Amino acid sequence: MLELYHSGLTTCSKQVRLTLREKNLDYVSHFVDLRTYEHYSAEYLKINPNGLVPSLVDDGRAIINSLAIMEYLDDICPEPPLRPADPKKRADMRRWLSTSDTTHMSVMTLTYNAFLKPEVEALSDGDKETVMAANPVPERRERIRRIAYGGYSEDEESRAMDMTAYTLGQMEDALSHGEWMVGDYSLADISLFALTHRLGELDAEIFDASRFPGVVAWHKRMLARPAVAHIMQPGTAETPANSALSLSGLG
Amino acid sequence: MLELYHSGLTTCSKQVRLTLREKNLDYVSHFVDLRTYEHYSAEYLKINPNGLVPSLVDDGRAIINSLAIMEYLDDICPEPPLRPADPKKRADMRRWLSTSDTTHMSVMTLTYNAFLKPEVEALSDGDKETVMAANPVPERRERIRRIAYGGYSEDEESRAMDMTAYTLGQMEDALSHGEWMVGDYSLADISLFALTHRLGELDAEIFDASRFPGVVAWHKRMLARPAVAHIMQPGTAETPANSALSLSGLG
Repeated sequence: MLELYHSGLTTCSKQVRLTLREKNLDYVSHFVDLRTYEHYSAEYLKINPNGLVPSLVDDGRAIINSLAIMEYLDDICPEPPLRPADPKKRADMRRWLSTSDTTHMSVMTLTYNAFLKPEVEALSDGDKETVMAANPVPERRERIRRIAYGGYSEDEESRAMDMTAYTLGQMEDALSHGEWMVGDYSLADISLFALTHRLGELDAEIFDASRFPGVVAWHKRMLARPAVAHIMQPGTAETPANSALSLSGLG
Repeated sequence: MLELYHSGLTTCSKQVRLTLREKNLDYVSHFVDLRTYEHYSAEYLKINPNGLVPSLVDDGRAIINSLAIMEYLDDICPEPPLRPADPKKRADMRRWLSTSDTTHMSVMTLTYNAFLKPEVEALSDGDKETVMAANPVPERRERIRRIAYGGYSEDEESRAMDMTAYTLGQMEDALSHGEWMVGDYSLADISLFALTHRLGELDAEIFDASRFPGVVAWHKRMLARPAVAHIMQPGTAETPANSALSLSGLG
């Protein structure tokens, strides 16, 4: 039995929920409420010591890291395939998975500043310290510290934009050769879509058809997929209204 | 025919050279001299538009990103296997590959400050700008800018240490269950060893047997592998003396 601990529409949760839906896999959904810090609960830290979502539990065994989970799902459920059969294309796909991972670091800078900073700034100093102390991962703790005390500078935001735009430029090149990132639709599309969807929510001016027409057209093709429409639907059990999911800014 | 463009003992080159050696695969070695900026040459940028090493070329087709190359080598040459057959363990392995990727960001901060800063600081302002302008990847360009003009602060170094130590702590937990990171020796060991080897070169005090006895013992097991001894040997065609490889600090 598959169980997914997730937070609805945050970036890594989107990646794994979309993979599950494309595979038509049944699973028990556990919504982890980031706003009430359920991801730092002793119970959840037993599943994922990093206190990050999502985590997949298969017959009691936890699997963490969204990219690892996505490949795992294709390993245990090969149909429909979401990885190219050709080893060279498969390598290209993995290169994009890794690119989505590193680009996520820059997109997080934008997300934290835009969506999460107002909430964290409004906490008392004591609560700020409590939230930071509860976060097991130093890199994420540091992000909370940054937005709790002033936020990322304009200069840092602008560099995060540059890095993200660089990835969009590489995607534009790849998409000049076909409809999807590496031949057939694959995990590369899924992982990168989670980022471009966030750029849309951020209303990031770099994500624009005049600059990256191929990427914007691809993004629309993604939105037209039934599985994407399904996981994005607001107000479902996996995307409850009280979570303000896509605005939670925690991933 | 396999051709490898690499820079000897930089982190990602080590990962791929070690994988090739463990597989006993023959390849044509192209040493890319980072000190003379060969990685920014028009010729090399045709192979890898990011201007990063290593790149693998298989029958004329370039494959980039060290983690993607490592999995590719196991795809095209399954013996000896460097990925667990069990899907759950394979997922664990991929979680560690991703962890090595993100931890590398912190280790690079330490490397750039310790090894590369003196060289870059010694450049004229004009040469500093030329080097930055030549670097296609904004994230790397920003790193050069940082060390060209003052370097990372003590505070930033200390946070990079914390993040690295966090990964060492997770490795310590994993290694309490066996000799290697995920059951049998795998790409997880190879990717993480490239980082601990760098921590040794940096003489990082966090990498200490009193704090991480399991990791230090595992690191010694790694050093005892014939393939590791082979790729680390200084002064070979792949590790020429004039490259001051492990001190180049460029990866």
